[in-house]
Amino acid sequence: MNGKEGSFGIKISSNNDVEGKLPETRNKFKVWMYKIWEFAKEDTNRVTFSLKVGLAVLLVSLLILLQAPYQVFSTSIIWSILTVAIMFEYTVGATFHKGFNRVLGSLFAGVLAIAVAELALMSGPVAEPIIIGISIFIIGSVTSFMKLWPTFVPYEYGFRVILFTYCLIIVSGYRTGNPIRTSIERLYSIAIGAIIAIAVNTLIFPIWAGEQLHKELVKSFNSVADSLEECVNKYLSNDGSDHSEVTNTLMDEFPDEPQYKKCRSTLNSSAKLESLALSAKWEPPHGRFRHLFYPWSEYVKVGAALRYCAYEVMALHGVLHSEIQAPYNLRSIFKTEISEATHKAAELMRCLGKDIYDMKQTIKSTLVRSVHSSSERLQRAIETHAYLLASSYQIPDHNSSIPLPINGLSKSNQLAEFKKEKEEEGEMNSQRILSVSWESTAALSLATFTSLLIEFVARLDHLVEAVHHLSQMAKFQHESL
Amino acid sequence: MNGKEGSFGIKISSNNDVEGKLPETRNKFKVWMYKIWEFAKEDTNRVTFSLKVGLAVLLVSLLILLQAPYQVFSTSIIWSILTVAIMFEYTVGATFHKGFNRVLGSLFAGVLAIAVAELALMSGPVAEPIIIGISIFIIGSVTSFMKLWPTFVPYEYGFRVILFTYCLIIVSGYRTGNPIRTSIERLYSIAIGAIIAIAVNTLIFPIWAGEQLHKELVKSFNSVADSLEECVNKYLSNDGSDHSEVTNTLMDEFPDEPQYKKCRSTLNSSAKLESLALSAKWEPPHGRFRHLFYPWSEYVKVGAALRYCAYEVMALHGVLHSEIQAPYNLRSIFKTEISEATHKAAELMRCLGKDIYDMKQTIKSTLVRSVHSSSERLQRAIETHAYLLASSYQIPDHNSSIPLPINGLSKSNQLAEFKKEKEEEGEMNSQRILSVSWESTAALSLATFTSLLIEFVARLDHLVEAVHHLSQMAKFQHESL
Repeated sequence: MNGKEGSFGIKISSNNDVEGKLPETRNKFKVWMYKIWEFAKEDTNRVTFSLKVGLAVLLVSLLILLQAPYQVFSTSIIWSILTVAIMFEYTVGATFHKGFNRVLGSLFAGVLAIAVAELALMSGPVAEPIIIGISIFIIGSVTSFMKLWPTFVPYEYGFRVILFTYCLIIVSGYRTGNPIRTSIERLYSIAIGAIIAIAVNTLIFPIWAGEQLHKELVKSFNSVADSLEECVNKYLSNDGSDHSEVTNTLMDEFPDEPQYKKCRSTLNSSAKLESLALSAKWEPPHGRFRHLFYPWSEYVKVGAALRYCAYEVMALHGVLHSEIQAPYNLRSIFKTEISEATHKAAELMRCLGKDIYDMKQTIKSTLVRSVHSSSERLQRAIETHAYLLASSYQIPDHNSSIPLPINGLSKSNQLAEFKKEKEEEGEMNSQRILSVSWESTAALSLATFTSLLIEFVARLDHLVEAVHHLSQMAKFQHESL
Repeated sequence: MNGKEGSFGIKISSNNDVEGKLPETRNKFKVWMYKIWEFAKEDTNRVTFSLKVGLAVLLVSLLILLQAPYQVFSTSIIWSILTVAIMFEYTVGATFHKGFNRVLGSLFAGVLAIAVAELALMSGPVAEPIIIGISIFIIGSVTSFMKLWPTFVPYEYGFRVILFTYCLIIVSGYRTGNPIRTSIERLYSIAIGAIIAIAVNTLIFPIWAGEQLHKELVKSFNSVADSLEECVNKYLSNDGSDHSEVTNTLMDEFPDEPQYKKCRSTLNSSAKLESLALSAKWEPPHGRFRHLFYPWSEYVKVGAALRYCAYEVMALHGVLHSEIQAPYNLRSIFKTEISEATHKAAELMRCLGKDIYDMKQTIKSTLVRSVHSSSERLQRAIETHAYLLASSYQIPDHNSSIPLPINGLSKSNQLAEFKKEKEEEGEMNSQRILSVSWESTAALSLATFTSLLIEFVARLDHLVEAVHHLSQMAKFQHESL
């Protein structure tokens, strides 16, 4: 979102402006217009939504502007305008949800207000305002307390509606002497507003929360996969030249790692997924989601499993930017295995994402097995060369007793090269020689990195399982082989 | 929050009920009442807030219920009720923020509506409704588009206010023929509502967003420290007996780790801190926060640095629950150093939290140094015994060439014991003997755990710096020595 930092406003270039300033203002205006254009193009639903709101308020205003409906509804129709403006949300589900809150809240408040007003009327003109006053105080306190209760937090708006509808009906009922008429008038004007808002929202280019949730989840899969690859590639290609600079930059801000930011936003996406799922539950079957009880809550669970993997990516990222680093040469020894495990894992994640996107169930056992075997190969490589990690200078005498992997020969070559380089480096630049112990801890950081990567792969199992469960519940199509 | 899973409702036990059911219902009712009581007791501000809302709506209703003010204000005062119900928020800052949105939005909409209405009036009776209709459509679309712009998202409510106020004024102005009177009436009734809401919210037991933010941040410090200690203690005390069970439980759900949940909620707290900081900026100097421009945004930065540490705790937690585990005996070799580093780090965090709580600047250099030296001791212990981590069976022949730490002797003893135990175990239970290579990877998981812990300590520096910056900006008192 390039508009994040942008400011926005209406600036009218006055004619009295100094000539020199004019082009600048015009230029700024152009930049703004371009930013707005980009913002709209990024997601055309934004424009659709805006025009739909305009249409909805226009339609409801016509009920007063035109002579014929005005004679039927009179000025009480202004409540419909309020209803449309407050109820109209971005997605269909959210509009239904808010509409439900508003209509049910108004109904409840209306019935309660009529009951209390009748009771107050019966108790005579002296007691009447006292009873009404006390009831207002009680309703205000009780609804405010209830909306703090965790279960009811999503219905916060409903409690607000109960409160002000109750007050409005009972107070204006007291002055007009006819609370029943007041509440009925209010209810039907709210109903008209609600019908217009829902009709415009649902029938004209509907924006479905379910569709958004679906896309959002798939996007998260790709973000985590991209971020994993970015982090590992950087780790393997990093020659340590920019290391001192990195530790000085503000933590958590790495301009050269665009994917990292996306992954981090995945970690904070739980609230977004939950609110979309809450809205999606209110939507009727639509588009590709044709079951009556589509398992939207499963999306939230898959999102949680995905976040669980993303934590490992954050930890990998932590190792990438930690102060103690394994020497580049040591890292490059395990480059093949690390890259392979990473790319297989990323491929599996993208494949899972694509399956969800296409709403298909493909058989991923081959891919899962290949991810595991590449992770095991990495593990074996680490095991075989564990002595390297423990102390990169001292090659123990018993290394022949450790089983060599298939590509053990090339590893030994790399190792010899690495030793030679280290020695040369040591000779050339004696003040840069690090203590043996520091060196060995540095090497252990490579062990940390690979352990985290292996743990990431282990967590993928949970993710595969969660996606499988979603596929079953949502009855994704089995791909014909 | 024990009320999280609880349900809530009003249930009136009818007299026609079967005798047997009555005690049960009564019992449930008691359970509810107890839960509500606990919920209220947990944070008495909840009760205060509820009673304040009741009072505010009562006060504004009195303007209509009593004869004298009613004759002054007449029924247009019902807009005040709506304003109070919508504006009254939990904290003072949020109320100010919402009030600002409402008042500024209404003012802007009022001025715009008057201008357009005058223009429409001048263009004759045929063009008037057309101009009004088009203007409503434009205002609806533009405000809806603008509120999607990231910079304006916090002012979402303000745009809604502009929309419906504009529609209400221009439409009812069209019918009464006097848009100026309509808007002025509406504005003063909104002003009355706003004044009552702000007066009640600010003058009677005010709940300050700043105070909440302050407490929330301190609580996060303690959560992360507690969670770190819990995780490490469990890692060191874990004898592996419940390991297979743990991997089968639903990920991310560990009922025996209450602190972990709190730490995880710290990760998701960024939105909460930001919204509290946004509200706090609206608050006048109060209580202990007496500077005019108190640096509330620094709290958000400290929160970010804290989250950066919490990521490491999550990763440590991941190692604790990963499938490949270092044998308990191996872990216990480094128990002293790990415990020491952990407890020092936790102590530093709690100390930072306490300093913020007390608004004091104490000199923490001794503590910071001691944290670092304990972290270095752990690092040295790992370095010295790196060969153990690399391959726990094969003790290389050159271990005499590795510098022994001060307590090297006891380590060697522990080591001999560990080897003996391992051998005994191997004899006793031959099918449980793991392959040499697996064993060495398992041992590397200990290296991962300690590396993460060391990285956690490294990140504490950022946190100390962030807290120091906050102390400077907020002019915390220097503690006299």
